[in-house]
Amino acid sequence: MAKGKGRILSIQSHVAYGYVGGKAAVFPLQCLGQVVNTVNFSNHSGYGRFGGPRASAAELEQIIGVMEQNGLLQQDRLLTGYIPGAEATAAVTTLAKKLREQNPKLIYLLDPVLGDSGRLYVAPEVVPIYQAALPLATIITPNWFEVEVLTGIKMSDAASLRHALQTLHETYRVPNVVISSIPLKPWLTKLLPPNLRPPADAADADYLACIASSRANGESLAAADSTAVYAKTFPCLPGYFSGVGDLFSALVLAHFDETGESESRAKGESPLSYAASQAVSKTHAILTLTHEVALELPEDERQATDEELDAREPMRKIKRMRGRELRLIQGQDIIRGTQPIEYRQLERWGGFWTA
Amino acid sequence: MAKGKGRILSIQSHVAYGYVGGKAAVFPLQCLGQVVNTVNFSNHSGYGRFGGPRASAAELEQIIGVMEQNGLLQQDRLLTGYIPGAEATAAVTTLAKKLREQNPKLIYLLDPVLGDSGRLYVAPEVVPIYQAALPLATIITPNWFEVEVLTGIKMSDAASLRHALQTLHETYRVPNVVISSIPLKPWLTKLLPPNLRPPADAADADYLACIASSRANGESLAAADSTAVYAKTFPCLPGYFSGVGDLFSALVLAHFDETGESESRAKGESPLSYAASQAVSKTHAILTLTHEVALELPEDERQATDEELDAREPMRKIKRMRGRELRLIQGQDIIRGTQPIEYRQLERWGGFWTA
Repeated sequence: MAKGKGRILSIQSHVAYGYVGGKAAVFPLQCLGQVVNTVNFSNHSGYGRFGGPRASAAELEQIIGVMEQNGLLQQDRLLTGYIPGAEATAAVTTLAKKLREQNPKLIYLLDPVLGDSGRLYVAPEVVPIYQAALPLATIITPNWFEVEVLTGIKMSDAASLRHALQTLHETYRVPNVVISSIPLKPWLTKLLPPNLRPPADAADADYLACIASSRANGESLAAADSTAVYAKTFPCLPGYFSGVGDLFSALVLAHFDETGESESRAKGESPLSYAASQAVSKTHAILTLTHEVALELPEDERQATDEELDAREPMRKIKRMRGRELRLIQGQDIIRGTQPIEYRQLERWGGFWTA
Repeated sequence: MAKGKGRILSIQSHVAYGYVGGKAAVFPLQCLGQVVNTVNFSNHSGYGRFGGPRASAAELEQIIGVMEQNGLLQQDRLLTGYIPGAEATAAVTTLAKKLREQNPKLIYLLDPVLGDSGRLYVAPEVVPIYQAALPLATIITPNWFEVEVLTGIKMSDAASLRHALQTLHETYRVPNVVISSIPLKPWLTKLLPPNLRPPADAADADYLACIASSRANGESLAAADSTAVYAKTFPCLPGYFSGVGDLFSALVLAHFDETGESESRAKGESPLSYAASQAVSKTHAILTLTHEVALELPEDERQATDEELDAREPMRKIKRMRGRELRLIQGQDIIRGTQPIEYRQLERWGGFWTA
């Protein structure tokens, strides 16, 4: 972690209630010693992202313009997540270009928030704008569905997984890709080296994998293969939690330190695999805490996800979401690293590119 | 501190850069274990509070209305600071009334941000709206100038100081008043009991006093006098820092625990004097850290305050402000209480009312 060294510009939505977008990202970054400048897209009530003013692209450009005039655009890290609409996405891309030109060493973590589980959250015209922005990024943190949308490649076997990652590295020139979560279907379990597979007796539980892949621009596959792909599987907690991806991305950025000064890294960890291991471990621990707290709530605040029932009774969903708000404040010692948790270290996936 | 017990609604301005308003208040509250829901008035570039959209009173009411519909207005604490304009002040007062009706035990800290050092920041028509809101507050944290504006009483001797505090307690029915800072002019030094005066050898330094006064509604002066007024003097750091009052108020609220469960309180501390002591101590330690860091900056980032020079060269002021941003992130262990600092305990001012 680049403790106290830099300054991050985070451009995200603000919600009054709950932890998504900036609310899920900024506090963890601050706990880890990062100074965060924040431009808010929106000022929402939370839950459903409605009920408050949304900054237009023009207003965003105005804030950014005034910051520039005042000499306040000197951040060495940039974090962007969910962006509401095509115009705002384009405005953010223009800003990223400007910061990159000013500082070629800018570390830009772009979380391409497009959708999940086969469903797009954004208008289809946003996708090509994101694709055009990818070459500006230092790190991206898509989930499996976002990888498929960005690359146009459905991942269903070794060849298509390799092809998708290769497309992100080569066509879109992204040096660091973390697939934050991908369900462990049989093809993927079989593909993983035996040491990376979940325990055999856990066969029935839902497992996810996190895959981190680094590739310097122009680096040959053979050179890359010796250190470049890492993975870890972990059990999936039941039900839906909001803001998990926003927290995960913030933690990856907070723990990413390319300069190699980090004494925290274990032998064999790359800057990216270290950052992803920290993010997987801490996110999982926060989710576990959230899940445990939720189980102790009154029954009507912990009902199972059921979209049909929710549609008939909107308060049902709100109560459930309220009960499943990430426990970031209560879990701040987890984030800070002062409370011991299971370290879920990503391990090298030897032969990924060449097998 | 009511650690993890409650939920605070904070209604403040948001700035992209620097620490004022919500940026100075929310992180400290979170570090102290408080879950904070935040409605942002504005989304500014920082520095001069310009360059970004400001939520209109109608937009604020919309956010609050949606929160209410969604059952998200169940906070047991409310924190308000600088509010831009009369309409927004009225909208916040309506909200405070609603929360108070729902929950008579609501703890509302109202920081009446009106001005400082003899100058109003707000339009004069805002003053009567604040006066009308005072009876809703559990605690107010005005500086000396705001006390004078709210009460219409110029404080220049024992009688006028008593009269001003009495007016806040009786006319405006505020049970807890913390005068966050009042310059230690000769009349005030002479008035203080000897144990509360600054050391005699420090006569030339600028000193400030913090005064905390509690009075239950309807309580007699004689009964109140035995425990009710506390004070502490402390040296004033040179130059201007933004966001100090916002930080101070957040710390008072975070450490205020009327239920008496707090085991942290020393003998003789009241809930209010304890909260004010914590706030004075931590704010002073953060300012000292900020001052020390600023002294190590390059010369052009630490020039003295000079309004004439600033007017001719706007970047001069911006650079100075950048150098004097509160070091909240770097000082988070101070806020959390895990780094030892000088405890500036407010002491009882015996005979304040009856002398």
